[in-house]
Amino acid sequence: MPDCFADRLIEAIIARKAPAVVGIDPVYERLPESLIGPRASGETVTVEAASDALLEFGRRVIHTVTPLVPAVKINIAYFECLGAQGVQVYLDLVKEATQQGLIVIGDVKRGDVGHTAMMYAQGHLAGHDVIQTPEHFTPDAVTLNGYFGLDGIKPFIEASRGRGKGVFVLVRTSNDTAASIQDITTGNGKKMHEIVASLVDEWATTSETLGRHDYTSVGAVVATRNAEDAARLRAAMPRSIFLVPGYGAQGGRAEDFKPYFKADGTGAIIAAGRSVIFAHEQPQYRSKFGEDWERCVEQACRDFVSDLARVVPIPG
Amino acid sequence: MPDCFADRLIEAIIARKAPAVVGIDPVYERLPESLIGPRASGETVTVEAASDALLEFGRRVIHTVTPLVPAVKINIAYFECLGAQGVQVYLDLVKEATQQGLIVIGDVKRGDVGHTAMMYAQGHLAGHDVIQTPEHFTPDAVTLNGYFGLDGIKPFIEASRGRGKGVFVLVRTSNDTAASIQDITTGNGKKMHEIVASLVDEWATTSETLGRHDYTSVGAVVATRNAEDAARLRAAMPRSIFLVPGYGAQGGRAEDFKPYFKADGTGAIIAAGRSVIFAHEQPQYRSKFGEDWERCVEQACRDFVSDLARVVPIPG
Repeated sequence: MPDCFADRLIEAIIARKAPAVVGIDPVYERLPESLIGPRASGETVTVEAASDALLEFGRRVIHTVTPLVPAVKINIAYFECLGAQGVQVYLDLVKEATQQGLIVIGDVKRGDVGHTAMMYAQGHLAGHDVIQTPEHFTPDAVTLNGYFGLDGIKPFIEASRGRGKGVFVLVRTSNDTAASIQDITTGNGKKMHEIVASLVDEWATTSETLGRHDYTSVGAVVATRNAEDAARLRAAMPRSIFLVPGYGAQGGRAEDFKPYFKADGTGAIIAAGRSVIFAHEQPQYRSKFGEDWERCVEQACRDFVSDLARVVPIPG
Repeated sequence: MPDCFADRLIEAIIARKAPAVVGIDPVYERLPESLIGPRASGETVTVEAASDALLEFGRRVIHTVTPLVPAVKINIAYFECLGAQGVQVYLDLVKEATQQGLIVIGDVKRGDVGHTAMMYAQGHLAGHDVIQTPEHFTPDAVTLNGYFGLDGIKPFIEASRGRGKGVFVLVRTSNDTAASIQDITTGNGKKMHEIVASLVDEWATTSETLGRHDYTSVGAVVATRNAEDAARLRAAMPRSIFLVPGYGAQGGRAEDFKPYFKADGTGAIIAAGRSVIFAHEQPQYRSKFGEDWERCVEQACRDFVSDLARVVPIPG
């Protein structure tokens, strides 16, 4: 029986001294010129060439960040937009990162009910129970949309159980219009996302997977930029690890992320995506490393990790 | 410039005299024995064999129902669970149904924000703007999760615009635990799903695509089994066509669906999935047509359509 997902994640964080995850959300047009060559404005590219480029880029990002962070988060949207070939690249990168020893979070934000949710859970976590998918590596955890209530989450919790896998349920997102739904005040004075938070805590409590570090396999995606909300949510979901997007490209600074952690430094993993993988676009790295985009990625990843270390104590 | 999605859908409903959509959610284990042969308990099958069988089954279902209904709804979860090959089968079925002249709803329930939502919208509706995907047929409409607010929906509305495509935003689902989130009472006395409904109406109003039949390309997924809630939601979203799952296998009878329609018979399209595509499992069809599972599907589809016609006036 493998360890509880939360323990695996926390111990990987301790090993790398970094509560950090690199988001691999590549866009063909922004790949380094040294990888795809010069591209004329308006020029298009075949699916095959784009898929090959995304796979090569993703692999090299994974190899570059493996010594520095415990985990990568791969957003399937950036691959799914290429159709089946893109999905194959996503799965190949999940496999590559797994084989490198990284914890892999599939940022898929799936949500459906009953039997359909079970199909998604098999595809994204457990593997199919009738159809042989020998080469089909699945992530260690996935992000989920909780609008259906427990029915949409339970099949994933069950698929995680006994496999050392986990889920992160969307609680509060960081986008401009999130408040129009997630901050609606409910009859008992709580905001909508607090209701979802209390459900996540309930699901975490009943999911039988409290680990050595006192967290379960049921985590939450929390991305408010309001420190009070962050602290309130930290208290409301004591058994859930938070996956927190928004560092760097989305404007977040290390200080903003402190309230997501407990005093001992556990409780959250901070994601940086474009600010790391597209570091070659940033003058401070480009001027230093020129066309060597992997050095840019490496340095941006080191800077990300040390910026977090400034404000968050490393557990363990 | 193609017609508005709502007009295309309503005119297809008028042409077939059926506000009905067949849900193609196939599971390998339940495919007819005459298609996949006898299967020993516990026996597994290769991805290739399963993909071929799902493609053949889906194609034959599409050909069987094409003369009877205006649309099919294909749930990607049942294909995605096979990995990239399954996604290719999903796309092949979208193409097949499109070429047969059916309106195709991709039941993908995607939801993300900003640039990521744009990637999903390109993949599922518009096609990629830089990468050539010549063989990549996309559905006419997709289902979406609105938990992010407008940020998660707008890229899909924009991808629909000028293409005759549309979206259906989840408002109220039919599963047991939906109420734990969707029926939460908010500060102004409305339930959470009514807040989402009013946002959908706002998005529909501002989406510039009011068609000849007074609907826009922004529809809603509504599946409450409460007639009063259904009527209230019908009044709250006058410009949105409702996609209503739950006929047959999920227990809904034709009478239950009447409140989803306006008096003129427009306003909703009812989905039946397993009760049609797995009709070969049902004694009343099996006893009549034996191993001829396509005749079972055809008769179940006819029965579904005539049951609706009993209670809903056909528009036009």
